[in-house]
Amino acid sequence: MVEEVTAALVIIGNEVLSGRTQDANLQYIALGLNEAGVRLKEVRVVADDEAAIIKTVNELRAANTYVFTTGGIGPTHDDITAECIAKAFGVALKRDPRAVECLLRQIKPENLNEARLRMANIPDGGELIDNPVSHAPGFRVDNVFVMAGVPKIMQAMFDGIRGSLKGGAKMVSKSVTIHAGEGVIADGLRQLQERRPDVEIGSYPFNREGRYGTVIVTRGTDPAVVERVSHEVALMAQGLGAGIEEESQPPR
Amino acid sequence: MVEEVTAALVIIGNEVLSGRTQDANLQYIALGLNEAGVRLKEVRVVADDEAAIIKTVNELRAANTYVFTTGGIGPTHDDITAECIAKAFGVALKRDPRAVECLLRQIKPENLNEARLRMANIPDGGELIDNPVSHAPGFRVDNVFVMAGVPKIMQAMFDGIRGSLKGGAKMVSKSVTIHAGEGVIADGLRQLQERRPDVEIGSYPFNREGRYGTVIVTRGTDPAVVERVSHEVALMAQGLGAGIEEESQPPR
Repeated sequence: MVEEVTAALVIIGNEVLSGRTQDANLQYIALGLNEAGVRLKEVRVVADDEAAIIKTVNELRAANTYVFTTGGIGPTHDDITAECIAKAFGVALKRDPRAVECLLRQIKPENLNEARLRMANIPDGGELIDNPVSHAPGFRVDNVFVMAGVPKIMQAMFDGIRGSLKGGAKMVSKSVTIHAGEGVIADGLRQLQERRPDVEIGSYPFNREGRYGTVIVTRGTDPAVVERVSHEVALMAQGLGAGIEEESQPPR
Repeated sequence: MVEEVTAALVIIGNEVLSGRTQDANLQYIALGLNEAGVRLKEVRVVADDEAAIIKTVNELRAANTYVFTTGGIGPTHDDITAECIAKAFGVALKRDPRAVECLLRQIKPENLNEARLRMANIPDGGELIDNPVSHAPGFRVDNVFVMAGVPKIMQAMFDGIRGSLKGGAKMVSKSVTIHAGEGVIADGLRQLQERRPDVEIGSYPFNREGRYGTVIVTRGTDPAVVERVSHEVALMAQGLGAGIEEESQPPR
């Protein structure tokens, strides 16, 4: 079996935990990692709290191939991610001349005050992550990628680094929509999953305009196997008298 | 100082980690906990994986007043939350006659097959959480509340239990919109935060139709203090020549 390439995401920000802001980064990163053959194993949302960030990053970077963080790299007092990453790795936080140059692409020299210069403080040894939107860079230390929280900026940063990720086998999926409740097909699904441990069969009930049904998603790394098992799901449901719709687009 | 009442949320589901589904439960629970005077400290999204769920629930229930979980309590093979909670607490999973009665409100006796009856398997000693939408109950074991993942059902369950939570001092907040970049006000904000450690001052940049600005959110448990500090934020920004809009509605 091929070794799994895994990732964890740390969403840093009181505003997500207070409900003020709805996170918009998880799904973008999840889909991008799928494309890169990297498996997102866990996401944690933590407060702007030094101890919490350091502990979380250290746990997750030991357990995963890659860790991504979003949020907390701006110029204000509540932006503490860079300090925390430096402490997590036990390295100094240094004013990085390359990062200062990035800032000067956006900010006039006379406006580059001490607060804004904080955005050029990078953990020693960190590589910069390009920010084509507003130029204040993210950075990478070892297997940890530190990105902005503003979705447009985060997306631009992530798009810039995804090509450098060394992924494993890419997951593909195929869906079947079944016009029957989960309870009707559960037994057949379980048997199928037991016979085919090389795929993941997920069952998601829905209620569309008063009509109940279930979407069955088959995921795995071998497109032919995913295709075959998904078709078996469809046949099983039809055998129970349920109407089905197999996904017509190619699996991804 | 009053002891803080805290909570953690565990979102269980491969479909969130794969990017198939955008979570819609975090924000609802976060806002509800605010209202109840409970502080959401951490959220974790984990896969439908027994070891991951047990470890996560055990870590978080030891560290928080309350833990909430969403997802994984349906009738199919990928619904493993009840088994995992039983194992996390080291208790048996038992067919609960009260839960069977709940199911019979929705399902005809002749359709109550073994798969559906799995939804009546509750960790020993668990109290049921009412599900007015589709009747299959959630449950509570000690300080852990196990709820459905489907947002409409989760919301109904959460609304039913929130009155029973023993909260601490309620957090209130007030916002000021400042028509200046974060870098302009960062120094003044930092000084204000240092002088007022009894509130949290959060800074959130925005770009609305090409116009950049910053929303400053002041949060704390004393409404008069929150009001005063938020007004000081406004005065500070005005002193720097920035246009401001103070929130007109009462703080919440």
